[in-house]
Amino acid sequence: MKRNVIVGQSGGPTAAINSSLAGVYRTAKARGANKVYGMLHGIQGLLEERYIDLSEHITNDLDAELLKRTPAAYLGSCRYKLPEIHEDMGIYEKIFEILNKLDIEAFIYIGGNDSMDTIKKLSDYAIIKGERVRFIGCPKTIDNDLALTDHTPGYGSAAKYIGTSVKEIIRDGFCLEYEKGLVTIVEIMGRNAGWLTGAAALAEGEDCTGPDMIYLPEIPFDIDKFMDKIRELLSRKTSVVVAVSEGIHTADGKYVCELGNSVDFVDAFGHKQLTGTASYLANYVAAEVGCKTRAVELSTLQRAASHCASRIDILEASEVGGAAVKAADEGDTGKMVVLVRLSDDPYQCTTEVKDVHKIANDEKLVPREWVNAEGTYVTEEFISYVRPLIQGDVSPVMVDGIPRHLYKAGFHGK
Amino acid sequence: MKRNVIVGQSGGPTAAINSSLAGVYRTAKARGANKVYGMLHGIQGLLEERYIDLSEHITNDLDAELLKRTPAAYLGSCRYKLPEIHEDMGIYEKIFEILNKLDIEAFIYIGGNDSMDTIKKLSDYAIIKGERVRFIGCPKTIDNDLALTDHTPGYGSAAKYIGTSVKEIIRDGFCLEYEKGLVTIVEIMGRNAGWLTGAAALAEGEDCTGPDMIYLPEIPFDIDKFMDKIRELLSRKTSVVVAVSEGIHTADGKYVCELGNSVDFVDAFGHKQLTGTASYLANYVAAEVGCKTRAVELSTLQRAASHCASRIDILEASEVGGAAVKAADEGDTGKMVVLVRLSDDPYQCTTEVKDVHKIANDEKLVPREWVNAEGTYVTEEFISYVRPLIQGDVSPVMVDGIPRHLYKAGFHGK
Repeated sequence: MKRNVIVGQSGGPTAAINSSLAGVYRTAKARGANKVYGMLHGIQGLLEERYIDLSEHITNDLDAELLKRTPAAYLGSCRYKLPEIHEDMGIYEKIFEILNKLDIEAFIYIGGNDSMDTIKKLSDYAIIKGERVRFIGCPKTIDNDLALTDHTPGYGSAAKYIGTSVKEIIRDGFCLEYEKGLVTIVEIMGRNAGWLTGAAALAEGEDCTGPDMIYLPEIPFDIDKFMDKIRELLSRKTSVVVAVSEGIHTADGKYVCELGNSVDFVDAFGHKQLTGTASYLANYVAAEVGCKTRAVELSTLQRAASHCASRIDILEASEVGGAAVKAADEGDTGKMVVLVRLSDDPYQCTTEVKDVHKIANDEKLVPREWVNAEGTYVTEEFISYVRPLIQGDVSPVMVDGIPRHLYKAGFHGK
Repeated sequence: MKRNVIVGQSGGPTAAINSSLAGVYRTAKARGANKVYGMLHGIQGLLEERYIDLSEHITNDLDAELLKRTPAAYLGSCRYKLPEIHEDMGIYEKIFEILNKLDIEAFIYIGGNDSMDTIKKLSDYAIIKGERVRFIGCPKTIDNDLALTDHTPGYGSAAKYIGTSVKEIIRDGFCLEYEKGLVTIVEIMGRNAGWLTGAAALAEGEDCTGPDMIYLPEIPFDIDKFMDKIRELLSRKTSVVVAVSEGIHTADGKYVCELGNSVDFVDAFGHKQLTGTASYLANYVAAEVGCKTRAVELSTLQRAASHCASRIDILEASEVGGAAVKAADEGDTGKMVVLVRLSDDPYQCTTEVKDVHKIANDEKLVPREWVNAEGTYVTEEFISYVRPLIQGDVSPVMVDGIPRHLYKAGFHGK
């Protein structure tokens, strides 16, 4: 590389997205890039000419290691959808004016579906206009719902945290015995795709029975059948743990979290409240069975838990960052790096690049055959798919008892 | 010791309670105890003669190490309050019949306030009746609210998890910029004592600004002053993170989590729902300010997160278990082991035994002077107190990507 590279982060953060950033930086520098810029808050920030010189932030190898262990988007993120090129040519002209001013050779965008839409539009525009900037996407999402790639960086670490936490919750559930039993509902992210919720099955092993049921959003949720299963489980167990996706819905398409609003609940300000899926089901079970119930939402914790990251995930995130730079340097544009699994056991994986037009705005769901016939648990195929992705640990750099992150004063917050 | 020891676990589980169990077992065996029994589900299980021989469970040193890394009560727990001796002599006769049949010399009970009430009553009865069994309490509670001991095993690990998770949440909050800002409310356990919620301040360091405000249950909560602070923070920050205790309440004693019910919310079964403290405040802020809000409940996770345990905590938990056996062997009864801090820096701590009559049913709260004048953050004294308790890590024994726990088939669940 002879000129400069710019990199941005977009969409929901993960525990691995900064490892991709570190990979982009390292490979760009190794291949001779002059400067490596970071857009602050993605393309939205770039439009306001908000960017940094990454060499002022990653000043040595320890900084790079800390960056890999830092959760959430170091550069800040955005959810900004570019208009179609014919709708607002002005925005594109402005972006390219900034990119050319910065003498950018490669534009790397780390993100999910929406971010790949950005890569697609910018690379299309560049081709139409004969611009020399190359655009490569770098996959990232805990949801694991990107097409054409075996899996997405960020998913493995979230899956490891979910498996670990669900196992701890199951263990906790057996401590106290309640007269009519205890039912714990664990709510996991993934509105349309059940990859994260299915990872609750990772709790199962020689030392843990695993969750009793797992409900993915791909399969319509039948509350009567659910209650039959709950009653049957409570007849032989003191504690029942169920993992549900936040996005489970009934056959007529209504989200379970919305069922609670049959009685309108408004607070003092007339603000309608949505009860969460787990808390709705926990209250439903308590009312129907009279047993003790708990609702646990893994919420933000599951995408930010760098302290429990998967080594495979962090390494692969860094690799796809490097592969994105390499692809741009070799002349590719309008592509996304994908992970290609060569084998499950031993686990081997490599990278390729695919046309981003075939990826953007698509969504990869859990195959029906990876869920049992009843729709209440994932199959061995699912577990064999996810198990390699959670292997190995990344020791946090502990300072005074708490994991250290990469930080520059004045950059985040105050 | 010449005869047998029996040990039980009681009250809410923690990440360290099994380390105390391991300490009791090891010291009892080392001091010559013949058998070490474990009550299943505490005194309640003992009354039904449910107990195990621990040597069948801890068969080697690896089992002992796994036990120390296993969250929740290995033996199962209970919340059973013994009647006063004069109210139901029959229960006491039954307990001592079982203890004498098992040839018990020392009865060790690992638990919190209520559990120390059990030790008090049983030791009183033994003295009155001339029974030879000795009763020693072993402190345990994430709440850290036991009197006379510097701190309680279980607290340090929960505090470490809270500091780590709040730091990750803060980092996540700066990723996406919202037009009117983002306010995240993190709800932490501790209905009356703010020790756990105050631990959110551990997130603060060179690389993190820490939470913006911390509200403990010891200080009346004023929602108008809270809103003033929120508005002021939002005027200069894109993301605000507030840690609140589940037990915060207004000056007239009403829990914040109950304020949401001014409009009655009943589900389809007429079951009244309590909105959580965090979700109530998040909805309140959203309605008042119109900004984006999030509610995160650390829930069961904070007491079960063995994967993030403090080494100091796990070691001290084991030590107090051993000290309890030693005390009984040396003739003590009606006592609880306490931790005595010799110095903060370097941190040094030893054990003593104290009369359980001075501990049972008492509750240690956070001193007023360890909270700032406004009641919105803990002081340096608080942080200096808790910081040594979260030092060091206990590497989980990872098997196939997930922490391993000690388990015997047929013992928990299925």
